[in-house]
Amino acid sequence: MKFNLALCQIKGSFDKEISRNRAEAAVKEAAAKAQVVSLPEMWNCPYVSKYFREYSEPEGGETFQFLSRLAKENDILLIGGSIPEIEDDKVYNTSYIFDRQGNLIGKHRKAHLFDVDIKGGIRFMESETLSPGNSATVIDTEYGQMGVAICFDVRFPDLFRKMTDLGAKFVVLPAAFSKKTGEDHWEFSLRSRALDNQIYLAAASPARDPESPYICYGYSRIIDPWGRVLATAGTDEAIVYGEIDLDYVEDVRNQLPILKNRRPELYK
Amino acid sequence: MKFNLALCQIKGSFDKEISRNRAEAAVKEAAAKAQVVSLPEMWNCPYVSKYFREYSEPEGGETFQFLSRLAKENDILLIGGSIPEIEDDKVYNTSYIFDRQGNLIGKHRKAHLFDVDIKGGIRFMESETLSPGNSATVIDTEYGQMGVAICFDVRFPDLFRKMTDLGAKFVVLPAAFSKKTGEDHWEFSLRSRALDNQIYLAAASPARDPESPYICYGYSRIIDPWGRVLATAGTDEAIVYGEIDLDYVEDVRNQLPILKNRRPELYK
Repeated sequence: MKFNLALCQIKGSFDKEISRNRAEAAVKEAAAKAQVVSLPEMWNCPYVSKYFREYSEPEGGETFQFLSRLAKENDILLIGGSIPEIEDDKVYNTSYIFDRQGNLIGKHRKAHLFDVDIKGGIRFMESETLSPGNSATVIDTEYGQMGVAICFDVRFPDLFRKMTDLGAKFVVLPAAFSKKTGEDHWEFSLRSRALDNQIYLAAASPARDPESPYICYGYSRIIDPWGRVLATAGTDEAIVYGEIDLDYVEDVRNQLPILKNRRPELYK
Repeated sequence: MKFNLALCQIKGSFDKEISRNRAEAAVKEAAAKAQVVSLPEMWNCPYVSKYFREYSEPEGGETFQFLSRLAKENDILLIGGSIPEIEDDKVYNTSYIFDRQGNLIGKHRKAHLFDVDIKGGIRFMESETLSPGNSATVIDTEYGQMGVAICFDVRFPDLFRKMTDLGAKFVVLPAAFSKKTGEDHWEFSLRSRALDNQIYLAAASPARDPESPYICYGYSRIIDPWGRVLATAGTDEAIVYGEIDLDYVEDVRNQLPILKNRRPELYK
């Protein structure tokens, strides 16, 4: 089975309406060519800890309804990037996923929070304001099992193993790597997760905005199960397209049978 | 603690004496600058399945004694690349490790055999002639815990997790990636294993030999715990040097605390 996947690398904003308008225009353009579309991480909220609670909404809120409508109107499987979600006074970094009828078919709460303190780089302590999700997320879609993880989750090979073991043949990763860690780690980390698990990996970043309080890396990318970069953006606003061929996943798994030849008894 | 590590990227040969002479010259040169030295995978045997048994020796055999002498005479910790070992009529791809007194302090038998059938690339079925080892290998050395794995073992992130959990802060990987898989996967796989586990990773390949029945990739490399390439060879014979700084391992683990922030309950 083949389908086209698109990543909408849009700019963020302090104004939710501006963010929604950017998202709607990009998703509409992407949907003309792609059946599966993703937005980036925290696309409707500045990527600054202190704003997460202020911008948060409960499941079913205004932005949730907006995403549901986008999926239905554009007749696509929509990975709604991520937005801050509030539940029982806790705030989560949450990705909602909608089918082409606009029904919620799954959600992922970022499970590994972005806590770093890098010399000459960046200090960010997401855990001071956010609560983590508690699951690896694989969703049954019309294109088979799809994994969803968010940004810092990609640093944990074990999570990708788990999604693969749960049947994921492609994983979508809304993300907002920083400029520094992006330059140093983004490409090879994505390629390695895709190759090691022999999956497609599609990672959607916001566009870089020099005016923003958080300078993100950009370079939304789609990687194939052999670890090749299929398509990439730069730092500006862009839509990145790639063809996902699920038969090729099986082909790679046969040519290089590393999943089958694992030796779990040695890893305990 | 800091020390220098060297990788001897030597050419293979059908003649064990020629191979030993090449190994001895390279190790001697390397030992003038480095305290820890590694040879590549199957450095004393053509990398062709049908020769593994013919070239194999029991533990304690001629090549084993040669390696022990090299370690002692050059006053180094020597990772003896790998050579075919025979025990109970089974052949293994084995790395012997010697301290500076020439004592065997550990061994690793390749645990994941090289079985691939790549379109337009290479077919190789190591499991038709070799038996696999049955452990993750971490050895107590004068420089702390050192992991050892061999070539195709690098494709298994779980094995590197295990070595890290066992305390390894640096891993030495004698290897002989093929030209095709090397071009496609070598660099980013090494960088990812190093970064994901925040370890140094030193991978020693044979030099490329267009006359050889197996065209290996070359590009012996040392990667630091931030995923940077510290030093690299090309395809020709070379010695690659890098400074291993075990304090920097801790530094990276504090700046980017991904080991501590794993969530094993999600990966089960």
